[in-house]
Amino acid sequence: MNIDALFSLNCGMYIISSGYNGKHNGMIINALVQVTAFPNQIIASVNKESLTLEYIEKSGLFNITVLDKDAPLQLIGLFGFQTGKKIDKFSKTQFISGKNGIPIVTEHTVSYVETKVVSKLDAGTHVLFLGEVLESEFLTQEEPMTYNYYRDVKGGKVPRTAATFHPEEADKVEIERHRCTVCGYIYDSRYGDPDSGIDCGILFKDLPEDWVCPICGAGKDKFVKI
Amino acid sequence: MNIDALFSLNCGMYIISSGYNGKHNGMIINALVQVTAFPNQIIASVNKESLTLEYIEKSGLFNITVLDKDAPLQLIGLFGFQTGKKIDKFSKTQFISGKNGIPIVTEHTVSYVETKVVSKLDAGTHVLFLGEVLESEFLTQEEPMTYNYYRDVKGGKVPRTAATFHPEEADKVEIERHRCTVCGYIYDSRYGDPDSGIDCGILFKDLPEDWVCPICGAGKDKFVKI
Repeated sequence: MNIDALFSLNCGMYIISSGYNGKHNGMIINALVQVTAFPNQIIASVNKESLTLEYIEKSGLFNITVLDKDAPLQLIGLFGFQTGKKIDKFSKTQFISGKNGIPIVTEHTVSYVETKVVSKLDAGTHVLFLGEVLESEFLTQEEPMTYNYYRDVKGGKVPRTAATFHPEEADKVEIERHRCTVCGYIYDSRYGDPDSGIDCGILFKDLPEDWVCPICGAGKDKFVKI
Repeated sequence: MNIDALFSLNCGMYIISSGYNGKHNGMIINALVQVTAFPNQIIASVNKESLTLEYIEKSGLFNITVLDKDAPLQLIGLFGFQTGKKIDKFSKTQFISGKNGIPIVTEHTVSYVETKVVSKLDAGTHVLFLGEVLESEFLTQEEPMTYNYYRDVKGGKVPRTAATFHPEEADKVEIERHRCTVCGYIYDSRYGDPDSGIDCGILFKDLPEDWVCPICGAGKDKFVKI
């Protein structure tokens, strides 16, 4: 058994959003796929601990933002590593309201899909929501970001609650790298942090003192050498 | 509404296989994604008209082959456009038997996943099977084929029973192209048919008389100019 083989299952990088009674929230997911064409239906896997799930359960609605290849780690970190129980994520990003009343993130957005829930399936740690497509549009012709690109090229990490979390991945140790103890992001001097203007080749000790983790915003003192 | 926006949802190219009582079958799917990590579970959307679905229902088992980027249209055509009700697909390809007794195609295979069904959901035209991962392994380090690559680079078509079928796609008309009236494959002289040794730039009228549709095997006389 080599569970890393599951990485060869293709998936994308999406923000799923929902809302109820004037409140709204969104989070990063990659466990999403179109499952029928007549009518068009998609299925999304949402962690039971998430606030977004509460809103989907109550409203029966969710929308999807398809992130483009250049979406910065900060945007992914905002929706992937911070909780809507503490901050209003939509106050920190651009969005529009869908025809179904649910917000849709429009920063680095290739396209979006609006849905209503028609069925669901309990999958243990996650609930799978079957959503019928009410609306779908392109916003740009940019290339969508794949999960593999996020992980391999941008050096992104996934939280423990993600459908695609691999414990082995988090335990890999390489020299000359520093890991954020808050979210698990690894600063690798070979790649730098282009989204924050840090070139490849910059050593961790040479980063500006006000540099923060591009994903969760933690300071340099929260990093440990690995 | 622009349903082509659903093409920006990322998906791969897989063969799903199952069997029961000494019989077995497999088919191409792209509606597949990992949905939980503890335990590892994947969900697959299978058309209700398919023989593979019958075997999954009876055995409670299915396996997945992750196709590599160079998988030829002939292999995709065998599993995607021909029915196991008429031919034994596995007699025409290389395969191994999984630990769960279900065959796994090993031609142009990056990796495979063996599962047992733990739950299912009716999605109208398709049934969604939630499978717990029993085994997963890499066979090569080749790059997995994405559905977009199959469609855009290899010129592949999808049958009407596919989860990602788009009627508009089939109706698009471009000059200097010929469509197979059996399966819908389009021969485009700009691209040729590299999997059959036909270079780009070869006009349809100049194809060898024994050339056949790379997907369904139909002869030149089954093609119409579009």
